[in-house]
Amino acid sequence: MISVGIVGGTGYTGAELLRLLVRHPQVDLRVLTSRQEAGKRADSLFPQLRGKTDLTFSVPAVESLAACRAVFFATPHGTAMQMAPELLRRGVKVFDLSADFRLRDAAQFGKWYRHEHAAPELLAEAAYGLPELNRESVRKARLVACAGCYPTSVQLGFAPLLEAGLVDPSSLIADCKSGVSGAGRELKLGSLFCEAADSMKAYGVAGHRHLPEIEQGLAVAAGRPVRLTFVPHLVPMNRGIHATLYAKLAKDADLHAVFARRYAGEPFVDVLPPGEHPETRSVRGANHCRLSVFRPGGGDTVVVLSAIDNLVKGAAGQAVQCFNLAFGLEEAAGLDAPALWP
Amino acid sequence: MISVGIVGGTGYTGAELLRLLVRHPQVDLRVLTSRQEAGKRADSLFPQLRGKTDLTFSVPAVESLAACRAVFFATPHGTAMQMAPELLRRGVKVFDLSADFRLRDAAQFGKWYRHEHAAPELLAEAAYGLPELNRESVRKARLVACAGCYPTSVQLGFAPLLEAGLVDPSSLIADCKSGVSGAGRELKLGSLFCEAADSMKAYGVAGHRHLPEIEQGLAVAAGRPVRLTFVPHLVPMNRGIHATLYAKLAKDADLHAVFARRYAGEPFVDVLPPGEHPETRSVRGANHCRLSVFRPGGGDTVVVLSAIDNLVKGAAGQAVQCFNLAFGLEEAAGLDAPALWP
Amino acid sequence: MISVGIVGGTGYTGAELLRLLVRHPQVDLRVLTSRQEAGKRADSLFPQLRGKTDLTFSVPAVESLAACRAVFFATPHGTAMQMAPELLRRGVKVFDLSADFRLRDAAQFGKWYRHEHAAPELLAEAAYGLPELNRESVRKARLVACAGCYPTSVQLGFAPLLEAGLVDPSSLIADCKSGVSGAGRELKLGSLFCEAADSMKAYGVAGHRHLPEIEQGLAVAAGRPVRLTFVPHLVPMNRGIHATLYAKLAKDADLHAVFARRYAGEPFVDVLPPGEHPETRSVRGANHCRLSVFRPGGGDTVVVLSAIDNLVKGAAGQAVQCFNLAFGLEEAAGLDAPALWP
Amino acid sequence: MISVGIVGGTGYTGAELLRLLVRHPQVDLRVLTSRQEAGKRADSLFPQLRGKTDLTFSVPAVESLAACRAVFFATPHGTAMQMAPELLRRGVKVFDLSADFRLRDAAQFGKWYRHEHAAPELLAEAAYGLPELNRESVRKARLVACAGCYPTSVQLGFAPLLEAGLVDPSSLIADCKSGVSGAGRELKLGSLFCEAADSMKAYGVAGHRHLPEIEQGLAVAAGRPVRLTFVPHLVPMNRGIHATLYAKLAKDADLHAVFARRYAGEPFVDVLPPGEHPETRSVRGANHCRLSVFRPGGGDTVVVLSAIDNLVKGAAGQAVQCFNLAFGLEEAAGLDAPALWP
Repeated sequence: MISVGIVGGTGYTGAELLRLLVRHPQVDLRVLTSRQEAGKRADSLFPQLRGKTDLTFSVPAVESLAACRAVFFATPHGTAMQMAPELLRRGVKVFDLSADFRLRDAAQFGKWYRHEHAAPELLAEAAYGLPELNRESVRKARLVACAGCYPTSVQLGFAPLLEAGLVDPSSLIADCKSGVSGAGRELKLGSLFCEAADSMKAYGVAGHRHLPEIEQGLAVAAGRPVRLTFVPHLVPMNRGIHATLYAKLAKDADLHAVFARRYAGEPFVDVLPPGEHPETRSVRGANHCRLSVFRPGGGDTVVVLSAIDNLVKGAAGQAVQCFNLAFGLEEAAGLDAPALWP
Repeated sequence: MISVGIVGGTGYTGAELLRLLVRHPQVDLRVLTSRQEAGKRADSLFPQLRGKTDLTFSVPAVESLAACRAVFFATPHGTAMQMAPELLRRGVKVFDLSADFRLRDAAQFGKWYRHEHAAPELLAEAAYGLPELNRESVRKARLVACAGCYPTSVQLGFAPLLEAGLVDPSSLIADCKSGVSGAGRELKLGSLFCEAADSMKAYGVAGHRHLPEIEQGLAVAAGRPVRLTFVPHLVPMNRGIHATLYAKLAKDADLHAVFARRYAGEPFVDVLPPGEHPETRSVRGANHCRLSVFRPGGGDTVVVLSAIDNLVKGAAGQAVQCFNLAFGLEEAAGLDAPALWP
Repeated sequence: MISVGIVGGTGYTGAELLRLLVRHPQVDLRVLTSRQEAGKRADSLFPQLRGKTDLTFSVPAVESLAACRAVFFATPHGTAMQMAPELLRRGVKVFDLSADFRLRDAAQFGKWYRHEHAAPELLAEAAYGLPELNRESVRKARLVACAGCYPTSVQLGFAPLLEAGLVDPSSLIADCKSGVSGAGRELKLGSLFCEAADSMKAYGVAGHRHLPEIEQGLAVAAGRPVRLTFVPHLVPMNRGIHATLYAKLAKDADLHAVFARRYAGEPFVDVLPPGEHPETRSVRGANHCRLSVFRPGGGDTVVVLSAIDNLVKGAAGQAVQCFNLAFGLEEAAGLDAPALWP
Repeated sequence: MISVGIVGGTGYTGAELLRLLVRHPQVDLRVLTSRQEAGKRADSLFPQLRGKTDLTFSVPAVESLAACRAVFFATPHGTAMQMAPELLRRGVKVFDLSADFRLRDAAQFGKWYRHEHAAPELLAEAAYGLPELNRESVRKARLVACAGCYPTSVQLGFAPLLEAGLVDPSSLIADCKSGVSGAGRELKLGSLFCEAADSMKAYGVAGHRHLPEIEQGLAVAAGRPVRLTFVPHLVPMNRGIHATLYAKLAKDADLHAVFARRYAGEPFVDVLPPGEHPETRSVRGANHCRLSVFRPGGGDTVVVLSAIDNLVKGAAGQAVQCFNLAFGLEEAAGLDAPALWP
C-alpha cells in the first residue's frame, strides 16, 4: 500500500480524487488538508463518502505530508509551487492537478497567471501528465504536472493528425464546451444555478489560460510551433467536456485508421466506429476519452470530436493514472468503473 | 463464478444492471436478451460499456437462460410471469425487477396492472426483495420480487416508526419526487426533455400502481393494515427519489435513536446526523438509502426524509443485493462504489 | 403615467420587476437603485434589457425616490422598514417584496428574522399583498407587504377549504418544492449549479421563516388558529413553486366545485379541470396560480396541487398586481403575457 | 385585424406561434389545425394558454384556411408544398416555417429532404424569410419561406463579414449548439430527458439539411459561392442556439464597427459592446439575435458569437416579423416582450 496525502480536498477535483482513491486497491489515504475545514470529517462535507472514509481535514503541513509517499495537489494555482520543492526534497512524489508546473516557461506562467513562479527551477523537470502523449516521462517522474481539462481533450484529438503531419498546424481551431464543474467550487456569480441553467455562452474568447498549455503540447506533437484558436463555452451540465476540433488537411489519409492505430492498446482512449458521435455522458465518472473523426463532404476540413469527463480524465482520474504509472502499478488501477449512464 | 442472464437489457434498469454486473467479482454474465436488438453488441447501444463487455443481445429463449444459475428480469410487467415458472423448474434463481411478483394477491395485481396474472401459484412463494425488511426470506428464495423504487424509499422511511408502534398507521402520507429515469425509456411525450426540463408536476394523484405494494409492505411492518396517501411527482433530474413522509405520532420517543438502532449494521441504510437533510446526489449511482427524521416545532407530526437512486437501491442495485444474499455472497459485493458527486 | 422607483434592482426579483415594468402601459420607470452598481446602466448587468430601458443604477436616496408616486422594494429584509416610513410621509405608495411588513406581530418578526423591527407602528396598517384573499385592503393601501412565494402558493391552495370549514385546521401539511431562483442571487454554496443540478433535497424542515406568515394568513381564512407542517424542497429548475397540500376532510363536499366557485372571476387563479395536474412550466413567466384538488381513493385526505412562478405570482408579478389595484388600474395591466413554454 | 390560420399547431414552433399571436395587436386568430387533435381545445393541450384563447383544433382544410388572409405552416417538411399553391391562388399570404420553400433548387431539396418537390414552380417566387438580409422581398411576398433556426444564427453572424469582403468565403466554419426543442416534439429516443440531460454531443457532422440553406444564403451575401463546415451540437437546455463562427480574415478592419454599422437600426439584431459574450438566456422568448465579434490574439482568425432563441428568431418570431412586413405593420408588432431571465 502506498501512503497518500491530498492537499486541498474541498473542491470538485479534490472530492473526485477522494471518490477514486478511497476505492483504489493500493492506496492508503492518510492525509487530507484544508485550512478552512480543518478538524471536520471529510464525510461531513461530502455525505456521499459516509461509510467510505474516516479521514479528517487537517491544516496543510509539510511534516504530515512528507510522511506520505505521494501527495496530490487539488488546489488553485499558486499553492503547489510553494510546497512541492520541500516535499520533493524529502522524497515524496508530487502530482499537481493545478497549473503550476504545466508551462515550461516561467515567463509564460507569469503572463497568463499573473503570478511570479516560486519554483521555476522545477519547470524543466516536471513531467507533463498526459500519459498517452508522454508515458515514459510520467513513469520516471518525481513531479507530475497533470494536464488540464481542456488541454487533455484537445491534445488527444489533435495529436494523431499532427504527429502524422496530416494537417496544417498554423490554423487549428478548438471549439470546446465544458460542464459547470470546470469552473470550480468557488462562489462566483456565473456559477450559480440560475446563471448557468437552461443557457449557454462562450467565454474568454479574447484569451484563456489553457491556450499556452495546449499550444505547448501540440507543438511537441507537431514537431514545430502551432497556432490555435481556442474558444471555450459553458454548458448547463455538471460534468463533461466536448471538444470539436477543426484543421485543414495537408494530405490525404484514412483518418479513422490513423486514429485507431495511434490509440491501439491505450486503456483510456476509445476511437468510436466511423460515423458515430461521442456523448459526454458516455464518459461520466470514467477516465476515458472517446474520439471520432470526420471529413464532412469530403472537403479539406477535418473535424475531430473528443469527449472526456473534466473531473476524471480532465483532472482526478488522470492524476491517478499518472500516479499508477509513477509507482509502477497497473495503469488502470482504481479506474475501472464504467461511466454512470444516464 | 455464477453464470447470469439478463432478460430485457435495453431500458434504464437493464443498462444499470449491466453497469453493476460487468464489475461484480463473482458474476459471469453470459446471456443478454432483447427481441428488438437481437444480434447487436451491447456496447453498440451503450457506448459507455465499450471495453467492458463483449456481450451481444439475443432473442429471449428459455434454453439459453436455463443454462444460467441466475436470471434477472429488467422487463415491463407481464414478461417475468411468463418465463419464471419454467426457469424455476430448471433450477434457475429468478430476480424480477418488474412488478409481476410483488403483490401477494393476484386480484390486486389484476386490478392495478389490468392484466390477469399468469403464475398466481408463485405469488406466495416469491420473496419480497427489500433485504432490510425481509433479509431471511431473500436468502432462501428461488424467486425474488425486487421492491419497486417508490416502495423502497417509503418503506425504509416508515418501517422504524411502524415497527415500534410510534405512529398512527391510518393516516400516513408519502410525498415522493422522482427523477425522469423512473418513467423508463419508452417513447412517451411526458418523458421528452422539453416536456420535463425546468418544470415539475405531480402525477397519478388519483391512484398509482405502487400504492398497493407500499401498503402491503407497511402493513407487515405495522402488524396491521395501514392507510397511505401517496403522491408521486416528476422532477427534472436523471436519477433519484426523494420521499418526504408524514405521520402522526402516537407516542413520544427519541426518533433519531429509533432510526439509528433500527438500521445499525445495515450496509446500505444511512441515518444522517440529527438536523441534516439528504440530497439525492449523495446516492447517485450508489445502493444507499439516506434517511433523516424530524419533528418540526416539537408537534405531533413526524417528518421522515428518504433519498435513494431509483435505478440502484430502487432497482438494479437492490436486485444485485438480493442476488448476493440468495447465493450466499457478501451482501455488498459489486456494490461498493461511492456515489458520483456532483 | 405613474412614476415608479425600484430599490434593489440587482437580484432575481428586481430583474423580474424590471422585465414587467418596462412593458407596463401606465408605468414611467424613473429610479432604480443599487448601492453596489450605482452608475452602471441596468442593461449592462442585464443584457436581456438592451433596447428596453436606459435606466442607470443610482445610490438609494429618499430624495429621488420620494419624487416617485410608487416605490417597490426588491431588497433583502431589513431595508424597506428603514426607508418606508419617510416615503409614506411624503405621500409615496410603497410595495415591499421583502418580509418586513408581512407579519402583524413585531415579536414574531424578531424571532424569525433575528432583527428588531424598525417600524413596528406600520405593521397594523400594512396591507397583506395577496389580492385573492385581501383585495379591498390592497386597493386602499399606502403600504403593501407583498405575500411571499411559498405563502402565496400555500394560501391560495388551502383558502377555499378553510373558508368553507371543510378541513381540520389543526393538521395541515404543505410539502413545497421551489426552483433555485427562490434562494436569491447571493453567492451561497448551495446555489451553485453543481450543488443543485441533477439533485434535490428538503431544507429547513425544523423551521422556515415562511411558516409564521403562512399560518397567520391561513388563520384569517379559517377564522381561527391553524397548525401547519411546512417542508420546503429545492428542485433543479430556474423558476417555479409546486405546493402539494394535505388536509383531513371535516365534511363532505364537491371539492372541485368549491374551488371553481371560490376563484370564479379571478384573473390569475386557474382551477384546472378535474383530474388534471398543474405543471410549473405552465406558469413560467406568468402571474397565474394553477390549482387542482383531489381526494385519493375517496378517503378523508384531500390533496391540493398549486403551481406558481415564484418570481411572478410569488414576487414581482404579485407586486405589480397590487400596484395596479392600489392605483385603480386594470388589475391585469402589464401582466397579460402567456407563460413561456417550454 | 388580420384573420390568421395556423396549420400544425401541436409542436413547439406551433405552440410558440400561438403564444405570440394570441397577444398580437392586429391578429385575429381564426383557424388552428391538427389532424390528430381535431376537436380538442388548444388550451387542453397547452394549459399555459388557458384564458388566452378559445380556439379548437380542426382538420386542415383549404376552405377554412382560405377564409384567412394569412396562413402559417408549422408543419414538418412536405405539407406546405401541398397546400400552399391553392391558398396562394385564393389570395392568402403564406408563411412557411418548414423547409419546403427555402432552397431555390428543387434538386437540392430532393437530395437533402429525400422528397420530390410538389410545387417547384413556387421556389423562385418564395421570399427567403430573413428580414435583415432580405427585407424588401419579404415586404412584397405572397409566399415567405421563413429561414431555419441554425441558418438564421449563422447568416446573421457571417453576413457583415462576407458582404464587406473581409473574410475568405472558401473556409467558413459554423460550430452551432442548439437546445433540445430544436429537435421538435416527435417521440425520438434522443429527445428523451434522460438521453439529453447532463450531457452533450455533436450530430450530423457528415451532413445536415441546414447546410445547403446556409450556403445558399451566405453565397448571396458574399456575391459568390462559399464553402462551409457546419457542425451542430445538442445541448441540455430547452431553447436557444449559440453559433460560434470562424473565418480567415482577408483584410484588416475594425470588426466591431463593421457589425455595428451593418445592424444599426435593426430592431432585432443587437451587437454587444466589445469584449462581451452573448448568453442564450438573454434572448429566451425574445426575437433578438445578439452578436459579438472577436479577433483572438490579434491573429487572422475572426470569431463571431451569435445567440438566438431557436423557437423565436429561429422560427415563430421570425415568421411573425415577416408577417408584419408583408402586411405593412410595424415590424416589431407583437414581438416587444423582453427575454425571460433567468
